[in-house]
Amino acid sequence: MELHGDERIDYLLAEEDMRIIQSPSVFAFSLDAVLLAKFAYVPIKRGNILDLCTGNGVIPLFLTRRSSSPILGVEIQERLYDMAVRNVDLNQIGEQVSIQQGDLRDMPAVLGHGRFDVVTCNPPYFPTPKEDELNVNEHLAIARHEIHCTLEEVVWACSRLVKPGGKVSLVHRPGRLIEIIELFRKYRLEPKRIQFVYPRVGKEANMLLIEGARDGKPDVKMLPPLFIYNEQNEYTPQLKEILYG
Amino acid sequence: MELHGDERIDYLLAEEDMRIIQSPSVFAFSLDAVLLAKFAYVPIKRGNILDLCTGNGVIPLFLTRRSSSPILGVEIQERLYDMAVRNVDLNQIGEQVSIQQGDLRDMPAVLGHGRFDVVTCNPPYFPTPKEDELNVNEHLAIARHEIHCTLEEVVWACSRLVKPGGKVSLVHRPGRLIEIIELFRKYRLEPKRIQFVYPRVGKEANMLLIEGARDGKPDVKMLPPLFIYNEQNEYTPQLKEILYG
Repeated sequence: MELHGDERIDYLLAEEDMRIIQSPSVFAFSLDAVLLAKFAYVPIKRGNILDLCTGNGVIPLFLTRRSSSPILGVEIQERLYDMAVRNVDLNQIGEQVSIQQGDLRDMPAVLGHGRFDVVTCNPPYFPTPKEDELNVNEHLAIARHEIHCTLEEVVWACSRLVKPGGKVSLVHRPGRLIEIIELFRKYRLEPKRIQFVYPRVGKEANMLLIEGARDGKPDVKMLPPLFIYNEQNEYTPQLKEILYG
Repeated sequence: MELHGDERIDYLLAEEDMRIIQSPSVFAFSLDAVLLAKFAYVPIKRGNILDLCTGNGVIPLFLTRRSSSPILGVEIQERLYDMAVRNVDLNQIGEQVSIQQGDLRDMPAVLGHGRFDVVTCNPPYFPTPKEDELNVNEHLAIARHEIHCTLEEVVWACSRLVKPGGKVSLVHRPGRLIEIIELFRKYRLEPKRIQFVYPRVGKEANMLLIEGARDGKPDVKMLPPLFIYNEQNEYTPQLKEILYG
């Protein structure tokens, strides 16, 4: 497998037979992606799955362990798209996982409305700052800031792409909760499950997982909170279970 | 102090010098009220505080321990209003706390718009069921079901009564989160702090505390989760601290 620049091949956590190409200067997966891949409802066999803002394809890689349904990852950046394609090859999952380069705003027109049973997305978290405050690394800036898509465009695209009754799962920052709920409602994604992630007991939440159902009935469940570290600064048993099974 | 029917005088938790008249068949305060009284922002000295759906006045009683500001409790039911008035007398806090009988929907007209720095409310949680499913006890039914006011009317009234920049705190069920956030936004109460209460580790939340600021800027904080019971079915140290200090 060809590696470019500072790329390296890492283990995909507990998946002993899976590897992932990453790069500190271009894209390396974060806990956010791992938790989203665990949180999202996915069909075991039927239907098909779409992952927007797929980056190096980390979420599709994880989802192959929970589902045998076809999975499509969409990434706007050529450099990351290329990494994702090589990750599919490296893990020999090309029969199940496809990667497409493109802008998520074009996807409803390109892929068709209501085509997916499940849509997942780990979108950029931060509104676009002034030009001189942007991350000088373009790849990281695009992944982190709303440069190519706003939160509203993300929710709009998810809503268009998912089937009636299908599920959309996002990971985001808790500070955007109110906005996310309003946008979900605006685009007919009824919030059904929400989970907050806390760095440790007694601290405010720093991550939000939310799942909505297209045209679903109002009734939201607040899942048990998830804590990352215990008082000894080790991962909690709860998190270890998610990471290593 | 005169007691009616099955009324009894209880301790007000850790407040050793405070007592409260309650009645199992009319109104007895719940953990929800205690947690709201602890959660709500209150000024130490300045401004004035309003508690809607005050019941037997439990929240004003608790708030006298955190603030020396004037507190007004409003209750629609004559029988509960009367209990609240006697609770003020019993604790000799008539200089700080007043109780008024009335319908919260009339309060903006009666009390004036934007008159309060803080509004608290522990409203009825349940949409009104069919007549034959209602609690046969009228007092309990009114306190628990949206018979005299809907959630929208509660939020509307809070928003009208609070000053620009003032705070409104509610306790409610997590299943109503989405509706509450939409109504807060509709009536210009920007959600600022949210806390979920979980019966125990690993269970879904069963209580929601939310504070909004009238005309506030968008940015919500998810407070650390609160657990009620530990694995031995005892109150957690976290809850004991709230209850008993």
